[in-house]
Amino acid sequence: MIPTNGKKILQACGTEAVYTACEYLMRYITGFVAENGFVIVDKTGTTLYTDKRYIEAAEKLVQGTDVRAVLYQQNDAINRLKTYQSVGISFDQTSHSEYATFEKAGVKMVNVDDALYKCMTVKNDWELSRIEKACEIAEDAFLMLLPEIKEVMTETEVAALLEYNMRKLGAQGLSFETIVAFGAHAAVPHHETGTTKLKFGDEILIDFGCKIDGYCSDITRTFLFGDDKKHEDFKKAYNHVLTAHNLVQEKLVSGMTGAQGDAIARDFLKSQGLGELFTHSLGHGIGLNVHEFPSVNPKSETVLVDGMVFSDEPGVYDAGKFGIRIEDTVTLQNGKIKSFMKKTKKELLIL
Amino acid sequence: MIPTNGKKILQACGTEAVYTACEYLMRYITGFVAENGFVIVDKTGTTLYTDKRYIEAAEKLVQGTDVRAVLYQQNDAINRLKTYQSVGISFDQTSHSEYATFEKAGVKMVNVDDALYKCMTVKNDWELSRIEKACEIAEDAFLMLLPEIKEVMTETEVAALLEYNMRKLGAQGLSFETIVAFGAHAAVPHHETGTTKLKFGDEILIDFGCKIDGYCSDITRTFLFGDDKKHEDFKKAYNHVLTAHNLVQEKLVSGMTGAQGDAIARDFLKSQGLGELFTHSLGHGIGLNVHEFPSVNPKSETVLVDGMVFSDEPGVYDAGKFGIRIEDTVTLQNGKIKSFMKKTKKELLIL
Repeated sequence: MIPTNGKKILQACGTEAVYTACEYLMRYITGFVAENGFVIVDKTGTTLYTDKRYIEAAEKLVQGTDVRAVLYQQNDAINRLKTYQSVGISFDQTSHSEYATFEKAGVKMVNVDDALYKCMTVKNDWELSRIEKACEIAEDAFLMLLPEIKEVMTETEVAALLEYNMRKLGAQGLSFETIVAFGAHAAVPHHETGTTKLKFGDEILIDFGCKIDGYCSDITRTFLFGDDKKHEDFKKAYNHVLTAHNLVQEKLVSGMTGAQGDAIARDFLKSQGLGELFTHSLGHGIGLNVHEFPSVNPKSETVLVDGMVFSDEPGVYDAGKFGIRIEDTVTLQNGKIKSFMKKTKKELLIL
Repeated sequence: MIPTNGKKILQACGTEAVYTACEYLMRYITGFVAENGFVIVDKTGTTLYTDKRYIEAAEKLVQGTDVRAVLYQQNDAINRLKTYQSVGISFDQTSHSEYATFEKAGVKMVNVDDALYKCMTVKNDWELSRIEKACEIAEDAFLMLLPEIKEVMTETEVAALLEYNMRKLGAQGLSFETIVAFGAHAAVPHHETGTTKLKFGDEILIDFGCKIDGYCSDITRTFLFGDDKKHEDFKKAYNHVLTAHNLVQEKLVSGMTGAQGDAIARDFLKSQGLGELFTHSLGHGIGLNVHEFPSVNPKSETVLVDGMVFSDEPGVYDAGKFGIRIEDTVTLQNGKIKSFMKKTKKELLIL
């Protein structure tokens, strides 16, 4: 039985009811995901409204939980929402069109984004177990991939194999479109995987992840396809990025802000003259979304606490030359970082 | 060079400027896709604002087009938008949070959803060629899959192989999470692909698609894994669904409304006593989104015209027994339906 979060959300929001039509919020509250529908939580429980295409699956899934699944009828949302003194909605996840329609109908809306993010940012044991499984599959798939990488394969072919391995191992989908970058493509942090062919001596950067019950993993590994002895700068930088990555896992503790966490890696890379090349945040929250709260960047005032899940991904990018990123999905447990990545080594791998 | 649509959009919206931070609208206007950024179109051209992670790739892509790619600075959007007499935005694709921020800053916003949808619904030749390619890959991947399907494979394994085939053939991603349903699972229109194992005599329903340059294909095929001679009702229904599917391709013509198109299939299935089991729309628009305008359902007053792309997907679902859906991605050309699916047969296949 999938845990539901209606009661927790209602309590955190402090409104008479909570409404959402956002897919991932619906999933968080009810465990069910439908392209079409909405959820209303009030003191009587949680009601999931969906259409004929989803109702059978929804009824089956919510059996034994505090969620009722019912067939959506025209104007159900407005008619019910009008009866409450206050309805919590996510202003971030509600379109202005929907907001304007509700407002015109006299629905009394309150922005509950902060409460929603606060609830979702700290994961419970079941959520942590889903993320752990998604990380385990990602690592196993990567280890299966390594011996399959051959010269003249394209970036897309490598991505295809890796995604196939994840699916075979039980992944229910991808966290995001896999990034495979050969050679200097790795210097583009969000390179679009393409038809470039692998050649001896290329570096390979792979950023990927998969989903279990909606929960994401996110991992990046950078390595060499043979050593053509032209990688001195790359190797030096690789070791600095790895040190920065490891320092975060040693020194980041619960109670620090996102900015303090980010500084652990950034200060070290600056001390090695690589600060300018570390062009993004240290990390981002991971859960039902692959990018969510908390932010772990130089401006983040969010206090990091036990149960939060985020990435530890320092990177340096020297345009036209090389790019290096080493990323684990991690959580805070008993005040300290625990990485979900246990199987893949992070010392520089040369295939 | 990827065609851009800034000028077309600005003209259609009739506002001094158009703003969007919605990913697929950004892609439509500039050809570039970034998780973070926004686009402003005005009479001086199109400006794409993005962050350090994307800027290098963006600059490369927009070379030679009327798009400028620039590094995003804090408050760029508000500062520029305040200078216009009217800014067209999509109320459907703008969060209420963003709307409220702009409103507070005095930005004069106009809802241009109708104009945007109208532009995007009718595809140009380049867009049609992208969808055609995505359809071709989906069909080829399906034909490669058929001989690989074996007893005791799970739904997920079949999905994994099919997705692998699409990626190998050059697909840049999936249109949506592949649905593979064995046996009575096919009666759930949006079944979640799982660990059920295939056995002799099962029906198999597969609904899938892939993306080329962001443009989607969408196809469903239903067939039998061996014939255990227990499929009389299924076979009868299959032929009726196929007839409904084919009738649409024969009789739907430009100038009909979505409702008239839907009725071609629905009236036939009703005449065969299957009307109650056809629980969804005949079709939905397909483009940068796998579900977009035009709607082809009993209530749709949209007039279908040349260049629109949508699905022809009648289906019947007998809960606990079987489900049948036959779906092509089609367009209207010279007033008539042209299917993008040319390689897979639709007469009942028995493996």
